[in-house]
Amino acid sequence: MSRVFNFGAGPAGLPVEVLEEARDQLLDFQGSGMSIMESSHRGKEYDAVHQEAIANLKSLLQLDADHEVLFLQGGASMQFGMLPLNLLGVGQTADYIHTGSWAGKAIKEAKLIGKVHLAADVSKARPARIPKVGELALTPGAAYVHLTSNETIDGTEWWEFPRTESPLVADMSSDILSRPFDANRFGLIYAGAQKNLGPSGLCLVVIRKDLAARSPATLSSMLRYATHLEENSLYNTPPTFGIYILMLVTRWIKAMGLENLHLRNREKAAKLYAAIDGSGGFYRGTAAPECRSNMNVTFRLPSEALEEQFVKEASKHSMKGLKGHRSVGGIRASIYNAFPAAGVDALVSFMREFQSKNG
Amino acid sequence: MSRVFNFGAGPAGLPVEVLEEARDQLLDFQGSGMSIMESSHRGKEYDAVHQEAIANLKSLLQLDADHEVLFLQGGASMQFGMLPLNLLGVGQTADYIHTGSWAGKAIKEAKLIGKVHLAADVSKARPARIPKVGELALTPGAAYVHLTSNETIDGTEWWEFPRTESPLVADMSSDILSRPFDANRFGLIYAGAQKNLGPSGLCLVVIRKDLAARSPATLSSMLRYATHLEENSLYNTPPTFGIYILMLVTRWIKAMGLENLHLRNREKAAKLYAAIDGSGGFYRGTAAPECRSNMNVTFRLPSEALEEQFVKEASKHSMKGLKGHRSVGGIRASIYNAFPAAGVDALVSFMREFQSKNG
Repeated sequence: MSRVFNFGAGPAGLPVEVLEEARDQLLDFQGSGMSIMESSHRGKEYDAVHQEAIANLKSLLQLDADHEVLFLQGGASMQFGMLPLNLLGVGQTADYIHTGSWAGKAIKEAKLIGKVHLAADVSKARPARIPKVGELALTPGAAYVHLTSNETIDGTEWWEFPRTESPLVADMSSDILSRPFDANRFGLIYAGAQKNLGPSGLCLVVIRKDLAARSPATLSSMLRYATHLEENSLYNTPPTFGIYILMLVTRWIKAMGLENLHLRNREKAAKLYAAIDGSGGFYRGTAAPECRSNMNVTFRLPSEALEEQFVKEASKHSMKGLKGHRSVGGIRASIYNAFPAAGVDALVSFMREFQSKNG
Repeated sequence: MSRVFNFGAGPAGLPVEVLEEARDQLLDFQGSGMSIMESSHRGKEYDAVHQEAIANLKSLLQLDADHEVLFLQGGASMQFGMLPLNLLGVGQTADYIHTGSWAGKAIKEAKLIGKVHLAADVSKARPARIPKVGELALTPGAAYVHLTSNETIDGTEWWEFPRTESPLVADMSSDILSRPFDANRFGLIYAGAQKNLGPSGLCLVVIRKDLAARSPATLSSMLRYATHLEENSLYNTPPTFGIYILMLVTRWIKAMGLENLHLRNREKAAKLYAAIDGSGGFYRGTAAPECRSNMNVTFRLPSEALEEQFVKEASKHSMKGLKGHRSVGGIRASIYNAFPAAGVDALVSFMREFQSKNG
């Protein structure tokens, strides 16, 4: 068996130790005689997994007693609707900060449900960037302020979160648990699991508990944050296997330490950006340097033909998933938490070789 | 490693061959150098899985060109809301047939959204039963007629589906693909995967395509059947690993043949019902004989104390998950597709022994 370097934007690579443990227990979880996939969500085996997953997240995010962890389904895309359905009351306005492709999707869905004000719109800025805190035109009394902490397609990341009077809400699908931050300042955080936390089909929500009181009683039970808060994410059968993998991933992060993981993530990204910046213009980063993402490193080559050749040759050297998103083209190296430093070194070497042959 | 007999109601046992294949490929799917869990949902490895899962379902259900298969999230509970949000127009009435716990949940959620008429209500009948076709009081011009094909808690199953003018809709979570039936007569079928199809976190929907035109444009994209139909269930990242397991399970069913699987299911259930009926009243079935489920065999013992003892001793003999649902008590043996015939034989022997010691 030979594992490749998976630069894909998500579903993304998982720690090999996590996969090995899942494999070894797949037919017999801890001597129970069944897979965790086959275990009742009301039974003691799964319950221990569920509780540890929640406890690990609370510990890693250092959540206070006002915040709770929920495990939902439907990915961030479902949250684009669920969020305003729960928190955007009739006659209220929600502030959204438009930073690119994913913020744009959140905005489009929110507009179906209520009144949306763009507190800033840098979605067309080139190089791609994040607005400065002083640029934000916030609405007094807004239902909430929404931002996208990392734009996977545009390669930008928020490095300083604004302080807002209204509850701050963030889509953190692509950088959750990649660095320490003050989660307790947020009213709500959501994150599809398939980049930094586990497999697809599981969405983490961190909610300030008082906000769940806004969930309208007329809303379908499954769409109400209040339902899942009251039932500890066991209102119906949760995606048990996904939560099991998330539990193993969070255990892995705890063992490494979030600060160490952050340093490792920063070093991985810094090496790639140094390779781009040191190429004399052969490689060109697409994000403004002060807004560059540590998770998705996006860059262009002198021509689309060279980009295509780059992706093809890298693939032959076991570096997969480097093609930029179909909407923007170029190259994208996604280097989430589980992505090994050795993969970055391999890519940097390859970039040098490729330039020397084609530069 | 020793596997137990898992009589749990769901998440339920999976075919051991499926688990073995998933285990063997967990770190390196078909030589791709990554797990299928880590593969892009837009890549060729996952695409082949996705297409085969759909093709297997279309083949097993013998779907005509008017019907399509969708992979959604949130389980049947999400469908309880999504269904009326999409198909129950303003001013229209939906007919629901109330047969027990799960039908009751569907009805409760539909009432949040629109006008519901109970075409029959046998939810309080003891023994539990399914209404006869002649008992149904259907609404002319109803948006749809909803039934629950198998009540996991009450132990009843529909053996003859009504012919209705309005589109027939069924929650088939607990008996989908356990027997041949004419799926093309249905407007919509939904089924949480975790009993007969795969792990939790995946919900199969079969929809008559013209019905998707009813999805209101004002609804969140993720909640519209039309979205998922247009995007072939790839609007956002689907629960890829769950769909992979479903693909393996449907491959397993195809290899066995649905008719053979049905015979096996019927034989398993018949053996258990014969043991109940032949016990001289020590074991008492809770469902009317002509409505008995082949999936969930529910019965009582002379006292709750004996029931508790039965569950406890069975567990010591590697028979797990026999406790009835907390809302009704008693014993429930769930014997879905993947449940082995040997497990039924073991339970029948145990029932005889238990009776001879305690009868």
